[in-house]
Amino acid sequence: MIIDCHGHVTAPDQLYVYKAQIISHRGAHGRGKHGATDEDIKEALNSPVFGGTSHLEQLKEVGTDMQIISPRPYQMMHSEQPKVVRWFVEETNDIIARQVKMYPNTFRGVCGLPQSPGVSPKEVLPYLEKCIKQDGFVGCLLNPDPSECTSTDMPGLGDRFWYPLYEKLCELDVPAHIHSAGCRAERLTYSLHFINEESIAVVSLLNSNVFKDFPTLKVLVSHGGGAIPYHLGRFEASSLRAPGPRFSERMRNLYYDTVLYTKEALHCCSRPVGVDRCLFGSERPGVGTVKDPLTNRWMDETRDLIEAFDWLSSADKKAIFEDNARKVFKI
Amino acid sequence: MIIDCHGHVTAPDQLYVYKAQIISHRGAHGRGKHGATDEDIKEALNSPVFGGTSHLEQLKEVGTDMQIISPRPYQMMHSEQPKVVRWFVEETNDIIARQVKMYPNTFRGVCGLPQSPGVSPKEVLPYLEKCIKQDGFVGCLLNPDPSECTSTDMPGLGDRFWYPLYEKLCELDVPAHIHSAGCRAERLTYSLHFINEESIAVVSLLNSNVFKDFPTLKVLVSHGGGAIPYHLGRFEASSLRAPGPRFSERMRNLYYDTVLYTKEALHCCSRPVGVDRCLFGSERPGVGTVKDPLTNRWMDETRDLIEAFDWLSSADKKAIFEDNARKVFKI
Amino acid sequence: MIIDCHGHVTAPDQLYVYKAQIISHRGAHGRGKHGATDEDIKEALNSPVFGGTSHLEQLKEVGTDMQIISPRPYQMMHSEQPKVVRWFVEETNDIIARQVKMYPNTFRGVCGLPQSPGVSPKEVLPYLEKCIKQDGFVGCLLNPDPSECTSTDMPGLGDRFWYPLYEKLCELDVPAHIHSAGCRAERLTYSLHFINEESIAVVSLLNSNVFKDFPTLKVLVSHGGGAIPYHLGRFEASSLRAPGPRFSERMRNLYYDTVLYTKEALHCCSRPVGVDRCLFGSERPGVGTVKDPLTNRWMDETRDLIEAFDWLSSADKKAIFEDNARKVFKI
Amino acid sequence: MIIDCHGHVTAPDQLYVYKAQIISHRGAHGRGKHGATDEDIKEALNSPVFGGTSHLEQLKEVGTDMQIISPRPYQMMHSEQPKVVRWFVEETNDIIARQVKMYPNTFRGVCGLPQSPGVSPKEVLPYLEKCIKQDGFVGCLLNPDPSECTSTDMPGLGDRFWYPLYEKLCELDVPAHIHSAGCRAERLTYSLHFINEESIAVVSLLNSNVFKDFPTLKVLVSHGGGAIPYHLGRFEASSLRAPGPRFSERMRNLYYDTVLYTKEALHCCSRPVGVDRCLFGSERPGVGTVKDPLTNRWMDETRDLIEAFDWLSSADKKAIFEDNARKVFKI
Amino acid sequence: MIIDCHGHVTAPDQLYVYKAQIISHRGAHGRGKHGATDEDIKEALNSPVFGGTSHLEQLKEVGTDMQIISPRPYQMMHSEQPKVVRWFVEETNDIIARQVKMYPNTFRGVCGLPQSPGVSPKEVLPYLEKCIKQDGFVGCLLNPDPSECTSTDMPGLGDRFWYPLYEKLCELDVPAHIHSAGCRAERLTYSLHFINEESIAVVSLLNSNVFKDFPTLKVLVSHGGGAIPYHLGRFEASSLRAPGPRFSERMRNLYYDTVLYTKEALHCCSRPVGVDRCLFGSERPGVGTVKDPLTNRWMDETRDLIEAFDWLSSADKKAIFEDNARKVFKI
Amino acid sequence: MIIDCHGHVTAPDQLYVYKAQIISHRGAHGRGKHGATDEDIKEALNSPVFGGTSHLEQLKEVGTDMQIISPRPYQMMHSEQPKVVRWFVEETNDIIARQVKMYPNTFRGVCGLPQSPGVSPKEVLPYLEKCIKQDGFVGCLLNPDPSECTSTDMPGLGDRFWYPLYEKLCELDVPAHIHSAGCRAERLTYSLHFINEESIAVVSLLNSNVFKDFPTLKVLVSHGGGAIPYHLGRFEASSLRAPGPRFSERMRNLYYDTVLYTKEALHCCSRPVGVDRCLFGSERPGVGTVKDPLTNRWMDETRDLIEAFDWLSSADKKAIFEDNARKVFKI
Repeated sequence: MIIDCHGHVTAPDQLYVYKAQIISHRGAHGRGKHGATDEDIKEALNSPVFGGTSHLEQLKEVGTDMQIISPRPYQMMHSEQPKVVRWFVEETNDIIARQVKMYPNTFRGVCGLPQSPGVSPKEVLPYLEKCIKQDGFVGCLLNPDPSECTSTDMPGLGDRFWYPLYEKLCELDVPAHIHSAGCRAERLTYSLHFINEESIAVVSLLNSNVFKDFPTLKVLVSHGGGAIPYHLGRFEASSLRAPGPRFSERMRNLYYDTVLYTKEALHCCSRPVGVDRCLFGSERPGVGTVKDPLTNRWMDETRDLIEAFDWLSSADKKAIFEDNARKVFKI
Repeated sequence: MIIDCHGHVTAPDQLYVYKAQIISHRGAHGRGKHGATDEDIKEALNSPVFGGTSHLEQLKEVGTDMQIISPRPYQMMHSEQPKVVRWFVEETNDIIARQVKMYPNTFRGVCGLPQSPGVSPKEVLPYLEKCIKQDGFVGCLLNPDPSECTSTDMPGLGDRFWYPLYEKLCELDVPAHIHSAGCRAERLTYSLHFINEESIAVVSLLNSNVFKDFPTLKVLVSHGGGAIPYHLGRFEASSLRAPGPRFSERMRNLYYDTVLYTKEALHCCSRPVGVDRCLFGSERPGVGTVKDPLTNRWMDETRDLIEAFDWLSSADKKAIFEDNARKVFKI
Repeated sequence: MIIDCHGHVTAPDQLYVYKAQIISHRGAHGRGKHGATDEDIKEALNSPVFGGTSHLEQLKEVGTDMQIISPRPYQMMHSEQPKVVRWFVEETNDIIARQVKMYPNTFRGVCGLPQSPGVSPKEVLPYLEKCIKQDGFVGCLLNPDPSECTSTDMPGLGDRFWYPLYEKLCELDVPAHIHSAGCRAERLTYSLHFINEESIAVVSLLNSNVFKDFPTLKVLVSHGGGAIPYHLGRFEASSLRAPGPRFSERMRNLYYDTVLYTKEALHCCSRPVGVDRCLFGSERPGVGTVKDPLTNRWMDETRDLIEAFDWLSSADKKAIFEDNARKVFKI
Repeated sequence: MIIDCHGHVTAPDQLYVYKAQIISHRGAHGRGKHGATDEDIKEALNSPVFGGTSHLEQLKEVGTDMQIISPRPYQMMHSEQPKVVRWFVEETNDIIARQVKMYPNTFRGVCGLPQSPGVSPKEVLPYLEKCIKQDGFVGCLLNPDPSECTSTDMPGLGDRFWYPLYEKLCELDVPAHIHSAGCRAERLTYSLHFINEESIAVVSLLNSNVFKDFPTLKVLVSHGGGAIPYHLGRFEASSLRAPGPRFSERMRNLYYDTVLYTKEALHCCSRPVGVDRCLFGSERPGVGTVKDPLTNRWMDETRDLIEAFDWLSSADKKAIFEDNARKVFKI
Repeated sequence: MIIDCHGHVTAPDQLYVYKAQIISHRGAHGRGKHGATDEDIKEALNSPVFGGTSHLEQLKEVGTDMQIISPRPYQMMHSEQPKVVRWFVEETNDIIARQVKMYPNTFRGVCGLPQSPGVSPKEVLPYLEKCIKQDGFVGCLLNPDPSECTSTDMPGLGDRFWYPLYEKLCELDVPAHIHSAGCRAERLTYSLHFINEESIAVVSLLNSNVFKDFPTLKVLVSHGGGAIPYHLGRFEASSLRAPGPRFSERMRNLYYDTVLYTKEALHCCSRPVGVDRCLFGSERPGVGTVKDPLTNRWMDETRDLIEAFDWLSSADKKAIFEDNARKVFKI
Repeated sequence: MIIDCHGHVTAPDQLYVYKAQIISHRGAHGRGKHGATDEDIKEALNSPVFGGTSHLEQLKEVGTDMQIISPRPYQMMHSEQPKVVRWFVEETNDIIARQVKMYPNTFRGVCGLPQSPGVSPKEVLPYLEKCIKQDGFVGCLLNPDPSECTSTDMPGLGDRFWYPLYEKLCELDVPAHIHSAGCRAERLTYSLHFINEESIAVVSLLNSNVFKDFPTLKVLVSHGGGAIPYHLGRFEASSLRAPGPRFSERMRNLYYDTVLYTKEALHCCSRPVGVDRCLFGSERPGVGTVKDPLTNRWMDETRDLIEAFDWLSSADKKAIFEDNARKVFKI
């Protein structure tokens, strides 16, 4: 069985019409709702997107059996008015929860959180608890920069600022999936901001006491851990000068998804962090859902690349494709 | 012959005593000078640093014949008072120029520039010209974020803001070596900020018209191009949706140094960008100058890792170790 | 014939999905387009909105023959990134232009402008000219506060800051329709911000030299001139202390729409400004499209209220309902 | 008997000399006092102001028997240094209290409060209590924008921020009279800012729980309620879509003064809010104290306009001119 | 003959009533005027102030024959709205000019300038020229900190920012009298801010090229040169390390008034700067106009202290009391 | 015996190399240490500085037997990152403590404090206690402006903000020596900022309740009390208008060092404050360590100037040179 641990919801238009309204009227028309019916939601999953076929078809095309879906991050607008963020996150999670209910063999849900810059994560805990306990979500997204690149002073994930969230995650025994949202700076796109924030998150967490203080905390880092596996040697060198475990050992406190679209990168990520720390992910349909005219293959069709690694046993591959996700998300 | 294209100056204490003064008196004691003699400068290169031996010995230990040295970036303090920045850059470059003169077979110099946030690069052009034409430098450092992580609105390197500098670099036929300086945000260190800024720089340059407008511009990116070779597939996918050459082709407009300290990373970088775009670099003595107790080898001793790549011919290796640097820096 | 001079476009969902995307990806997916077909656009006008029936039906229900439509103001997000504002304004105007083309007997278009706080109106002039000359628009919206209530230092409309726009409007012989957009302050809604900004606009214009310097300028003020006709006595008193014409005379330099939903207000507006300065407007479908359970009439069905004024002759009424709009918009 | 519920103090020059000093020396000369004697204070009321005659004469000229006087709002400078604001408010209230004592048949006092932007109203409660209990004031002014138009983020009057004040007003059984002070933005004058703030205040209060939580709270809105009675239909329409009483009903939670200077406006205000919610006010001597050359009447001589309304009974008129003020201010 | 070079105007109350109004209405009532008659102005000079007697009497009491009067600095409010500053400065200068005209044997006028923080002194030149050429002023005040202690980045008086003013002063052949205005910081009073700003002004001017570039420029420093004569040795020492004349020589480029109220201070000031650089000043009536109960003498009655210096000849004393002022102000 | 109460440490280069590093890496290399050995520290005191000879020789040259040394203030960088400030202060104090230990007959130490703008002095109390009780310091420096001239809103030393520090100083029975650090404004140097801040400190303290609330508090003001003894008459006059002791009496609550380099200034300081309030200080080697070519004497060789005052008895002189320091610092 192939579980893709990193997918984003394909929502009906109504969700985005709703977003366009609330971001502008800011509550003047009331809170409102997206208004999509189950039919609308189903249709969204069965209509062509990105590369031509539907979300559900795209999973089949590459052999994905189950996908863990979360809000589409660039849409989450965490730096907007907190009230509006909360509404939009709730409505997005509603779509996800309904899709999971409709397609219980195909989907599991990771919820978004109504994060706001400068606001303690304590504020989101009751909502997180509700998502997990009542709505059936199996984890949450965690944006290390809810300022969306408008400030440089968000506390790093290793800071005690985030401890209330870690405590609750341990209590609920669900993972956080690190994924930033939009980026309001002109000099980089949200997509590159994802990568940079993942790097910051990994280093901040691993150079802190978080895993000493929360030994059961599960954190999954998107996109192969940002730049860190690639620059492992650099951080390893620094760690050799200081007391405590070397950086490559510490890296094994985290999980990494394989949302990387070249063989070299998949190798560069999975080799040092270890098979038991990698979860297959494709983000399909998403940025990689385009056919490379040279190979006539989808860029995000990376299963074969992993299958082809001769240094991985069958059990290793099963761990990456299925077992690790089952363990982390308790599926 | 082995040329290390990425080294930083080992300066005598006087330079940093000078820095500590000017950053505090801000000119109240006059501009002053570092005051180090040729003897002091020589001694600095021959006294133990970092991993135990001297800078000159450390080069020999790993078989480096020539090193291209530039200011030690984290010390450059571009976000300080512009006058003070200018003085410190001038004094640092003075040390470098004198080391190159003393050890003409061992060193070549890349100068720092007195960059300041919000100030047009036009301001540094006369000084750059002097460094190249009179003082014998063979290139310059270029910091994409002189704000040192205090703001998020510096124009990306693809912006026309930087064109006056590119024009001058073409006219002088010397390369810019991309390397940010300090980082005043708490959530990441300067070392990780280097990586993130390199990623931003690569994407900003390659998604712009810079190389169309300056086809002879030479830009060398530090640390294996930040995260971009690792995430090549992600940017490739986006490029396949838009007109123009694919991202992997555009990547060949830049040069990359091999300041990466693992085999996987060196492979992940050099494979896609191509042999003619890689320049050997070690940053030794520097962050990687520490012995791994498991292997009993220096982390920054990466020559052997490259030598061991069986997919590289002897000519390829010579290109990486020597020829490319000769061409880019006109040595 | 009844011309409603103040209506807003009923656009297909695609426009708002497009908005939700660009406000978040900020160009990372390219500029894009709303993607709605003529069928989608037609369907939007023929599907139920607000009070139950379709836009086109709602006009018929109250006897409106022709409506002048403009972008839905609260959606215009002038305080967002200028590039994104421009794209959204262009796409919105595209929908309007196509509706006017499809229903030439029913609609005329007033275009939105890509205004941004702190940016000179000079920047929008080429686009305005294209809208009028090529795309058939008969006027433009003018937002006196593109900061959307995030700052208090926008120059008033009487300031020379706005002169380039006034010059172009005179040259093109089209009116500006004053209408602010969103409101990002918590203490008031956009709807009340409309009113307050209209008051500021009227006073700023009438206490300036604008109509001395641009005697042919046509300016239509939304919602019965904000609070000013109601507080006419207050401003009249001040004007009697200073040289120049009295305020009530100066008020006749402007045009006012009758988007007021009570008899008393319609009287209070139209009486002092004069019949030749009033244009019938209903904003239907819009905020007033709700049935009052006490009267069982639409709140925005105000034609009868005006018809019932015994102090108006038939010619007066025809002026308000048709002739003035024909003259101002050259229909 | 005619009671004018909205008048402002005519103070001796010493008060303003005092203000000019403290705003500049900021306490360096000590707190000081205005220094005016009872003679000075009396003289101020008996010397020509504005339209030619004295304050006391002006009341007689239009038949006002009693006037409720408060600080002259545009002078209150709430956005200045809090210490200086407090001193000036205290000195102004001192003048008022002494005038009330000298002319007990003619004046009643409404005190100013030393409000400061961003400071909780809790700070002013002891002083308010002293004014009411010891100094004989019958109400207080309430400025919804002590920032004087320098910021856009003051909490609206419906916000719990203001609850401590409402609690104290109920306990003391005195009304708040809503009236903003100066305006430091360039785009509008303080006089128009009054109107806009009154509109914001009315909507914020009526769309909140304030009158549910404080059913005995008495709030008098200046200048006929800003723009709201004029735009009643707009707010009524919105209210018909939401649960709870319609807006026109909610409007009856407030009191409105009749400081409007045209027949149409007086009609437009008093008709919908109801006779029992209107208090006669003229602000004389003030902005309206100028003779209209066309009618040869004072602009602020509005008693006759109200007397002429044929839809009002004698009892209605007595309510507006006398009874309502007696009830609200417990005279 | 005794000339007191440093006195401030005693203005009628109307000036300050005017100030209190314009600072609050900001032009909403028009520009207006102070409205004081010649009688009012005369009365102000003949009514008791400060220490009990009138301004004119106070001069006689200490034997002052002529006084050079300027605006009362702490009232000048340079950090307020520029338009309001300009009006108040003009009105204040009007009072001064009329007093000089009324008492030509007693007074000469030094005008205030409508300075504003961040605004080039070029803006005030036409007004300065008018004051000197048409209104008979013999010099101007110069505030080195029009921000009134709200910012720390005003250019020092040695900066080229001020050159347009120096050029005009030379052309008109009149002196600038350095005197700051208010102080909006809480940690010091305006009176101490005067001193600190004078110190900054003296050092900034003397360590610049101003007197090289404007050899005929006349600058009079208030209050005995701030702290500089007292700390002369400190600055002398620094100057001995650098090229150019020693600091004590450079100090002779400036003039200093003797507004110091102890024998030791008068000695400490006049001794090093030289007799030809000292102008008698008392600021009477002012801060020093109080009787010391121990000596029963006015604190600002300092003439005797100077007379008592045995190291001064009669000619020296005449220079200080009369000749230097005649020369600097061309009386 | 001659005790110089105001000297600054002559530290080895390593301290400033350390500073240059931490200010740039901000902890990325760990906290680190200056690394100087006792030999380095001794050598620093015995190597030529400033005027040519060594620190120890310079004391002998002018006959100083003992000197109280503190951190070199302009280097203290209080406005930098608090963590970095703390490290540098600790390392600097370490050098001082070791010098005192090495030369117990020559030196006593006054420690620096890790002050930061906006941070309560409570934060430094444990460290202060450790310095005094464990490390043998006899007092501390106190910077009234840790913002280093980047803001104007630091609470004055008379404010209760500073009370926790005063309480601890009384408990420990050690003095605070007022001395600001750097100055980041362009318009004045740190040296002049010292003077201005001392003036502000003196006035703020003496016009507050500090010495009423802490009668045993000992405060020594640097550089002869800033400008205040020079302007004593000005402040005396103000005090005569208010209740309480006259300013000259209050001045006797403080101690003043004689770091003034002219006879007139030494006289102007010591005369009014009284012999028992003056402590001999020279700051040698420092700003005054330069030979005046006219006199061939060091500018900071001021002992003879004091010796020459004929109004001082031998006992007076001994008090200034020795006894007062013994008492204040409990030597």
